[in-house]
Amino acid sequence: MTATPEAPVKTNDGQLTLELDRAHVFHSWSAQGALKPMVIAGGSGCKVWDFDGKELLDFSSQLVNVNIGHQHQGVLDAIKAQLDILTTVGPAFGNLTRGRAADLILDKANQGSEKTHFQKVFFTNGGADANENAIRMARLVTGRDKVLSTYRSYHGNTGSAIVATGDWRRMPNEYATGHVHFFGPYAYRSEFWSTSEEQECERALHHLERVIQSEGSHTIAALLMETVPGTAGIMVPPRGYLAGVRALADKYGIKLIFDEVMAGFGRTGGWFAFQSLAEDGVVTTPDLITFAKGVNSGYIPVGGVVISPEISAAFDEAVFPGGLTYSGHPLAMASIIGALTAMQDEGIVDNAKRIGEDVLGPGLEKLAARHEVIGDVRGLGVFWAMDLVSDRETRTPLPAAKMAELKAKLLSLGMLPFVQENRVHVVPPCIVTDAEVEQALAIYDEALSSL
Amino acid sequence: MTATPEAPVKTNDGQLTLELDRAHVFHSWSAQGALKPMVIAGGSGCKVWDFDGKELLDFSSQLVNVNIGHQHQGVLDAIKAQLDILTTVGPAFGNLTRGRAADLILDKANQGSEKTHFQKVFFTNGGADANENAIRMARLVTGRDKVLSTYRSYHGNTGSAIVATGDWRRMPNEYATGHVHFFGPYAYRSEFWSTSEEQECERALHHLERVIQSEGSHTIAALLMETVPGTAGIMVPPRGYLAGVRALADKYGIKLIFDEVMAGFGRTGGWFAFQSLAEDGVVTTPDLITFAKGVNSGYIPVGGVVISPEISAAFDEAVFPGGLTYSGHPLAMASIIGALTAMQDEGIVDNAKRIGEDVLGPGLEKLAARHEVIGDVRGLGVFWAMDLVSDRETRTPLPAAKMAELKAKLLSLGMLPFVQENRVHVVPPCIVTDAEVEQALAIYDEALSSL
Ligand SMILES: Cc1ncc(COP(=O)(O)O)c(C=O)c1O
Ligand SMILES: Cc1ncc(COP(=O)(O)O)c(C=O)c1O
Repeated sequence: MTATPEAPVKTNDGQLTLELDRAHVFHSWSAQGALKPMVIAGGSGCKVWDFDGKELLDFSSQLVNVNIGHQHQGVLDAIKAQLDILTTVGPAFGNLTRGRAADLILDKANQGSEKTHFQKVFFTNGGADANENAIRMARLVTGRDKVLSTYRSYHGNTGSAIVATGDWRRMPNEYATGHVHFFGPYAYRSEFWSTSEEQECERALHHLERVIQSEGSHTIAALLMETVPGTAGIMVPPRGYLAGVRALADKYGIKLIFDEVMAGFGRTGGWFAFQSLAEDGVVTTPDLITFAKGVNSGYIPVGGVVISPEISAAFDEAVFPGGLTYSGHPLAMASIIGALTAMQDEGIVDNAKRIGEDVLGPGLEKLAARHEVIGDVRGLGVFWAMDLVSDRETRTPLPAAKMAELKAKLLSLGMLPFVQENRVHVVPPCIVTDAEVEQALAIYDEALSSL
Repeated sequence: MTATPEAPVKTNDGQLTLELDRAHVFHSWSAQGALKPMVIAGGSGCKVWDFDGKELLDFSSQLVNVNIGHQHQGVLDAIKAQLDILTTVGPAFGNLTRGRAADLILDKANQGSEKTHFQKVFFTNGGADANENAIRMARLVTGRDKVLSTYRSYHGNTGSAIVATGDWRRMPNEYATGHVHFFGPYAYRSEFWSTSEEQECERALHHLERVIQSEGSHTIAALLMETVPGTAGIMVPPRGYLAGVRALADKYGIKLIFDEVMAGFGRTGGWFAFQSLAEDGVVTTPDLITFAKGVNSGYIPVGGVVISPEISAAFDEAVFPGGLTYSGHPLAMASIIGALTAMQDEGIVDNAKRIGEDVLGPGLEKLAARHEVIGDVRGLGVFWAMDLVSDRETRTPLPAAKMAELKAKLLSLGMLPFVQENRVHVVPPCIVTDAEVEQALAIYDEALSSL
């Protein structure tokens, strides 16, 4: 491979990549027969390229995880330094990078609330097993079985995580017990016949409490929710909702888990989404936070659970019955230290906030004013959705064929977009510049015009 | 950290490691209160060391995964090279390292059988989610629900994997449906009142068939088994067992999954354990192989499923409903290419075979002849167990206090051992030298003498 970070070069490896892929690689969430995956050869910052030297502006951050951008030198250097010391170690052993990574994560998790609200971190390989272990903790600590989560959610592909998931992916995989789903707030497509954000919040909380009561509050271990549901449509909860959920969890002795796998580490313009959503300076904190993706921008597979002292203390004497070979893997830990240090030193989280408030948010609003097809624009930081409709009155989702056409157009105009159902998720890396946002807005504008 | 590969140096970081660990790191499979983890600062080959410069001979391979030894330069270089190209990419995109890694794994998986018996690879983050996805495939392809696995097994910590697991770790986690357990063969502690290996095999197969019939064969999707159960005691199946299981799977239309997470990639002296256990040149192949650990010696978290053409083809038209953010992660793929290439070029798998046959196996037999406390020695390659008993006649397991004493003694003599219940698992890296084995045997000898 001859591609170098700044100068993609045309080679023949694209064809080879495709051949090997089609012969030997089994792909997720797809039928394998007709797949023709787009090839990515390299990347840098907000750009990726193929072996023909064609560059694309990455406004997907891959799976909404490359928050620090592609090939950030600081993270690469941190990984390389650890590579020369110790690559792998069993989780039972003490390892310096692991303690340091946990310390940094906790420092971020505690911003805006008491300094010791969160005290320990359990490391996993990704988001799914982070949720598995958070659910395990909640069940063991409460002695209850059920887990409540929303229909419009994604929590991962393993046993419990996939059944906690609300979307279609749950359905062929329902081999886990104790899962109950409810509807979260989503003003633009309300399940509660509400006509305002305020009413949506009130009714969503009423609905949740009715589900809790009807299931039997004493049977419910955990309430698992994406702080800002991502894959399902980037639905920023209305003012009052998080605090309302926290109050219900307290009232009924239920452990509150915020899944910040996608929303965490800069995506919303704060370290965590629940911090970005502070109201009048008051942060609503969960009992457990699950994380992955943005914590190290996916440079090494990793995830984990941030644990409150109360839950952690419950396992001081009792054995915690969960674990995995790569828990607290040294390279993953080094990449977390590298990524969080760089994000902090380079003001990357603040950049995401500023971009959202000053450039991307207003820019998308302007697009909505110009294009009838945009039914709704919502989001914060670098976490936005354009909800596309064939009719603004009925809010009928734009048909799949139109969405495919739009996606093809965006690609042809030099953007790697994130298209999901009838939505375009606008989710660039947190390092995105004003100029790149302007470039992207122009591409969206042109593509939408062509519809 | 100033430790360098060949010359561990004393620093004060050990204390800092311990402080950070105890303050912030939540550990697997343990009560957190009284933990005082041993600190590992660095390693090279079959050695690891702490910050005081104290070296230990690693006869655990950490969690029986560092098959290529610590800090193998070829693997480090492969990771570094990929770091400079592209660290992370979404799984939907084609990526050259992924196709190459899959190609190499399939080349190994098909050794000894038809060249195209296995055709595709689905990549995961570790062993647990490899099993989750193999189970998913078997269920979807058969349209059946139940998964049979053995009581003496470990398959991972997520939803289905932990319930497929046979040992105590399953019990606090039984939130997955459709799991049934049976007894596998274990001549030294037979569940079938057998008096020979041959009888144990016959009766174990009879027992399995009776369980299949009693559960209703038409309800059983998969038979999931460690080819050589590892954590449960390294029970090499008797001659005829694997072929017998394969015949039962065929007879009843059940998909056979070999969990080779621990046994695979050199551990047994072959690329896969089912190849090492070929009888008269005939290899018994499963429908799905799950792998992790040895595939890249844990240098980057990774795992996966090797898929037969029949199962792969079932998802040519139908969507496969499983996936994860880091599936086929470029760095993980590069580390697999680096590890498998080095294992092949440097004859590392052959070394494991030779060591087992000529040095470690005979050496352990000699120890057994000298020490009454060794009730049984079993294994192959670099995958051995000494089963310790307080009475050879009754085969009563050596009590936990004695095992703790032995472990402490082994550590004090400069070995990092793998002690599990009443057993010492003798599981060095596959690169172990004759001299290191002799050194280890002398340490075991001295420690056992001190009991
Ligand atoms: C909110 C959320 N939770 C969990 C996950 C699962 O993470 P992983 O794919 O690393 O298992 C995802 C992945 O997209 C996610 O968006
Ligand atoms: C046979 C077997 N399967 C699965 C696993 C789970 O692998 P992981 O810890 O990577 O999830 C293990 C781990 O020890 C194992 O030994």
